[in-house]
Amino acid sequence: MRVKDIGEQKLLEKIKSFCPKSLIGDDGAVLSIDPLQKIVVTTDILVDRVHFSDTTTPPSAVGWRSISANLSDLAAMGATPVAITIGLAIPKELPVEWIESLYSGINILLNKYNIPIIGGDVCYSPTKIISITAIGKVYPNHVIKRSIAKPNQVILVTGHHGMSKAGLELLSNSHLKKYLEKEIQLKFINAHQYPEPRLDVLPYLKDIMKTHKVAGMDSSDGLADAIIQICEMSGVGAEIEQSKIPMIDKLSKYISREEALEWVLYGGEDFELVLCLPEEIAFKLLHKLGKDAHIIGRIIKEKSITLLKENSECLFLKTSGGFQHFS
Amino acid sequence: MRVKDIGEQKLLEKIKSFCPKSLIGDDGAVLSIDPLQKIVVTTDILVDRVHFSDTTTPPSAVGWRSISANLSDLAAMGATPVAITIGLAIPKELPVEWIESLYSGINILLNKYNIPIIGGDVCYSPTKIISITAIGKVYPNHVIKRSIAKPNQVILVTGHHGMSKAGLELLSNSHLKKYLEKEIQLKFINAHQYPEPRLDVLPYLKDIMKTHKVAGMDSSDGLADAIIQICEMSGVGAEIEQSKIPMIDKLSKYISREEALEWVLYGGEDFELVLCLPEEIAFKLLHKLGKDAHIIGRIIKEKSITLLKENSECLFLKTSGGFQHFS
Repeated sequence: MRVKDIGEQKLLEKIKSFCPKSLIGDDGAVLSIDPLQKIVVTTDILVDRVHFSDTTTPPSAVGWRSISANLSDLAAMGATPVAITIGLAIPKELPVEWIESLYSGINILLNKYNIPIIGGDVCYSPTKIISITAIGKVYPNHVIKRSIAKPNQVILVTGHHGMSKAGLELLSNSHLKKYLEKEIQLKFINAHQYPEPRLDVLPYLKDIMKTHKVAGMDSSDGLADAIIQICEMSGVGAEIEQSKIPMIDKLSKYISREEALEWVLYGGEDFELVLCLPEEIAFKLLHKLGKDAHIIGRIIKEKSITLLKENSECLFLKTSGGFQHFS
Repeated sequence: MRVKDIGEQKLLEKIKSFCPKSLIGDDGAVLSIDPLQKIVVTTDILVDRVHFSDTTTPPSAVGWRSISANLSDLAAMGATPVAITIGLAIPKELPVEWIESLYSGINILLNKYNIPIIGGDVCYSPTKIISITAIGKVYPNHVIKRSIAKPNQVILVTGHHGMSKAGLELLSNSHLKKYLEKEIQLKFINAHQYPEPRLDVLPYLKDIMKTHKVAGMDSSDGLADAIIQICEMSGVGAEIEQSKIPMIDKLSKYISREEALEWVLYGGEDFELVLCLPEEIAFKLLHKLGKDAHIIGRIIKEKSITLLKENSECLFLKTSGGFQHFS
């Protein structure tokens, strides 16, 4: 069955049947939030053939990623998700199964974090577009800001960067497939299609933030981008040690070290957190997060952002035009 | 200059320069709401050539209407706007002036109601799409619901329905232009391009709602649709008297009475309010709203929705498939 067979007016009803946890009532939804908490709102648009493609992302992954991107934005501000709204613009000829599959991906994440859908809209459009707005809550002293990094703080990153890019490369061309075990391939592809927002880090930060402010953001636009943005907004610089950045072992056998570093720094879409905090506090956090986090560098007073390579070479991390390259 | 000349990364910065009241900070925006109030959220997507067209709506009108539609949704729930987020998906070839003009329309309404933009996203897309999420606040006893209309309540409508449809017809074909004075033409076209959400009615309702609950919704999908939805959700019916529905005098000279009635009932996009409340309370409200409101019928226990015509004929108001027709 295609979307046009249901008719635009009945489409929202049909979609509601795909999301049992929807709170979209006949009279709208109302929310109550602890008056001591602030409300944080974030919006993301995903466009077919710009942000996703049928060749690399099944509809369930499109749904998952669209939610994950917004939850990552909330995590980056230290906020816990409260509710989301979903706007869908879809072609008349789209099979209804595509939407059902989209919501299957959406539902897994929403159920995991117990987030209701409190509003939505659906309409015909020549291009498939998913527009998500996520509402979060945060106590004022738990807000993570990009603009408050201070010299001598260390830079702690969660997870492994470049995984999503590796997954995309595997899906886009078969060159790598020849060398990698099936299990490793699936790990990369999963990182690209079903990335986890790092809301799990927030409880650890709350303890820290009783006494210390934490600067940071997520790395959805790439690790280098996150470092550059934090530095620019805080009026500081950074020194990153290449040897401290976790690289993907399995990959470095098959692509050059330079290419691997490029994927890690500029690949994007990893939805990890990049945090700046005092060294002794960072070590405590590192202890709690285990192998899943690394201290990769330090905030400095001078406004340059440099990458100290293993051969003692020193490179500038750059933003050049639309895309960032190191040279 | 075209959008692609700025580059996707710098586009959001450029857009921020078009909306001086934006609160989109480098660290996101946080909101505080009176703890006694509930939060209401509404989302709307507007798609080029589906909801607007360059031939009938200049970009400033597209911006205005996209905000107005969301504010009307809030008004329909009895909620006062707190903040909005704007997601834009736009073609690379779009002139930047189009976006600037879009925001000029958006800004007039946001300034009028003092509403900050607290989040946004912009990305490339083959189709122009505007996705708006509006956040409102409402005290629990001021919530207007569709589902609580009761037999013997009267149906009060604000404004004049069919105006937006008349404006669209004037813009789409020149047939009507021959007969109508320039001033009247502009009035209709203005109703189509720059409709006002009926937030002005809310202060009057607050007084009433100290003692009485009010059922209702907005008429953005047409007057007939609003009546049908309220009745279906409240498990009641309605009797509408055609003679009580305000018709557009200037028009009825040039189109048939039947066609004029069709525009009024099914034209849509008027963003007026359709309210159900006890007769004596409705008269008080009518007194306050003056010529701008009319009592057009009554809620009945039987689940039929009938239109009593002037010649004593009785017709059923129907929803048929995607579009509603009376017969």
